[in-house]
Amino acid sequence: MITQPTLFVDKNRVQQNLQRMIAKSQRHQLRLRPHMKTHQSRIIGNWIKEAGIEQITVSSVTMAQYFASQFQDITIAFPVNIHEIEQIKTLQNQTQLGITVESAEITKHVDKQINKPIDVWVKIDSGYHRTGIPYNSYNLLDAQMEALQNAHKLRFKGFLTHAGHTYQAVSPNEIRGIFKLSNQAMRAVQERYAAIFPDAQVSVGDTPSCSLAADFSGIDEIRPGNFFFYDAMQQKLGSCNWQDVAVCMACPVVAVHPERKALVIYGGGVHFSKEFIEIDGRRIYGYATKITPQGWDNPDEQIILSSLSQEHGTITYPTSTPPFQAGDFVGIIPIHSCMTANLMQGYQLTTGEHIDHLTGYRKNH
Amino acid sequence: MITQPTLFVDKNRVQQNLQRMIAKSQRHQLRLRPHMKTHQSRIIGNWIKEAGIEQITVSSVTMAQYFASQFQDITIAFPVNIHEIEQIKTLQNQTQLGITVESAEITKHVDKQINKPIDVWVKIDSGYHRTGIPYNSYNLLDAQMEALQNAHKLRFKGFLTHAGHTYQAVSPNEIRGIFKLSNQAMRAVQERYAAIFPDAQVSVGDTPSCSLAADFSGIDEIRPGNFFFYDAMQQKLGSCNWQDVAVCMACPVVAVHPERKALVIYGGGVHFSKEFIEIDGRRIYGYATKITPQGWDNPDEQIILSSLSQEHGTITYPTSTPPFQAGDFVGIIPIHSCMTANLMQGYQLTTGEHIDHLTGYRKNH
Repeated sequence: MITQPTLFVDKNRVQQNLQRMIAKSQRHQLRLRPHMKTHQSRIIGNWIKEAGIEQITVSSVTMAQYFASQFQDITIAFPVNIHEIEQIKTLQNQTQLGITVESAEITKHVDKQINKPIDVWVKIDSGYHRTGIPYNSYNLLDAQMEALQNAHKLRFKGFLTHAGHTYQAVSPNEIRGIFKLSNQAMRAVQERYAAIFPDAQVSVGDTPSCSLAADFSGIDEIRPGNFFFYDAMQQKLGSCNWQDVAVCMACPVVAVHPERKALVIYGGGVHFSKEFIEIDGRRIYGYATKITPQGWDNPDEQIILSSLSQEHGTITYPTSTPPFQAGDFVGIIPIHSCMTANLMQGYQLTTGEHIDHLTGYRKNH
Repeated sequence: MITQPTLFVDKNRVQQNLQRMIAKSQRHQLRLRPHMKTHQSRIIGNWIKEAGIEQITVSSVTMAQYFASQFQDITIAFPVNIHEIEQIKTLQNQTQLGITVESAEITKHVDKQINKPIDVWVKIDSGYHRTGIPYNSYNLLDAQMEALQNAHKLRFKGFLTHAGHTYQAVSPNEIRGIFKLSNQAMRAVQERYAAIFPDAQVSVGDTPSCSLAADFSGIDEIRPGNFFFYDAMQQKLGSCNWQDVAVCMACPVVAVHPERKALVIYGGGVHFSKEFIEIDGRRIYGYATKITPQGWDNPDEQIILSSLSQEHGTITYPTSTPPFQAGDFVGIIPIHSCMTANLMQGYQLTTGEHIDHLTGYRKNH
């Protein structure tokens, strides 16, 4: 029996989402190296291993440490933080480790500091402008590739990008268009260095592209992560349907205010994060729905989580009678499942079983 | 030595902020019942006790449990979640507990379920419209007060509000104006029931009001919480100066991109939360500054954390040369210290000592 905000995960949906992505990657002859950042769970890691996957992506050294005993091939898709070289060296003894670089300077530094050969990916900015060497900054790229050529312990694997600007798209076609441009940029980089590095691969990654694209020509590897759960943001982007969303918060209703057509729930920024989507000028922090014995219903999209404080949330509804009463548990489909899972520190199956999350483990566990 | 994003807390600043609020509450003959939600730390709880404070506010039953062995008088300023009645009953054996209600229905339910007398506050919506009974909804108020009159185990203490709409104000004068209107509303409610409840108190709480107001007439108790740390949002509101802000994140710079005048840091939405303030149409997720041996400098406000992904942050700067290099630690003044502290699960003093946070404790600790 639950008493507080609780994050439910639907195992069947996670497995269906995974099987769909596996089938797609097989159809397009891609290596699926799923990203663990969304779920950050070893139990879900076991479901992934049971599906035959042995190579994963993570976004921090800490996350690599969490999964190192479970997966034999891990790429840290985050630029090397030179303060974590010792941790990286230790990880090399536990798993086949890949790291990501985006400057000649750090590349040389890593080559000097480590002892054993390591897989290296070069992060390319293919249009998102968050991290990576711009695909058309030839001086920077040439310096980067020269550093790799001269390195002694770095096994260059290929070019890696994250076309995160698909999240700003307004339609599936726009997402496919961004993906196409991003892939062209990646292939141009690959071709520029084909004479020196004929085996360089291309690795791409965002969930909207991987869910919606039909053309993966020239791509060797995909690294989606959010697709395990999806969320309201992905549903709005068109990456998934409501029935694919595999997580739902259950929150106690603590007050009903028909005079302002609002419900107060126990569930705030420390549970959901304050990510929102904006539709017609309204900020939406989640969509309310009914919790059922088997899971939850699809939301009707008129009953929304319209504001969040630290521990409170306000749900607004358009009907004359309140859709929930004080004491009910209301389901909330989160806007961004990665952030919500990270805050909740763990999950529950509808059968009651607890599912781990990295943030629920203490540093001194 | 730190290797990852680390939240530093400046003990002197916390103690100065506390002493200033204690002096102000003494000057205005107010009971200071500080809110623990911002720091959520027992070590900081000890600093508070050393300053002579024995009564605190929390915003969840979990937070009350965390502090129950430390403080002898705790108000849970959050509407009762009826699923936590058993936990409330247990807490009554550990501390003098106060709870908050905002409907006749829940009030009757609580009176039936508990065994021992308990302090009760009625939550009033004095203009923020988040929670509470609207101060001018007389039918709802009358029903609420009748339920308290007829209750057997509920010791009605008074009316409690949180004028959180001060956070939307654009000037200190506007904050004082909102506070004044909120207080008028509270006194009107108090007067309406003065014949039946002559000892009913008024408790108010937000940090902008408590920091900026000079007129507290009619108020019995204040419950600010953010003022222990303050943050960039409070500095922009005028509640504090930069040198009052008592927390600062230290984040490793992992890449420098002069071609787009940007730095990439290890430090993202899972460290800062994605709260932002908007200035001239730009979203600002934090202000960058230099870490010093004693703490950190005031930010110059031109070097800003301009976007956040899960683990990455992007700092943009206006100068022709980058203000930091890869491998440096950059200080970031967070936008909302409560959310950042909650995510970081703990703090560090500049002397290296670890400071606890409730979220760093496992449920099964």
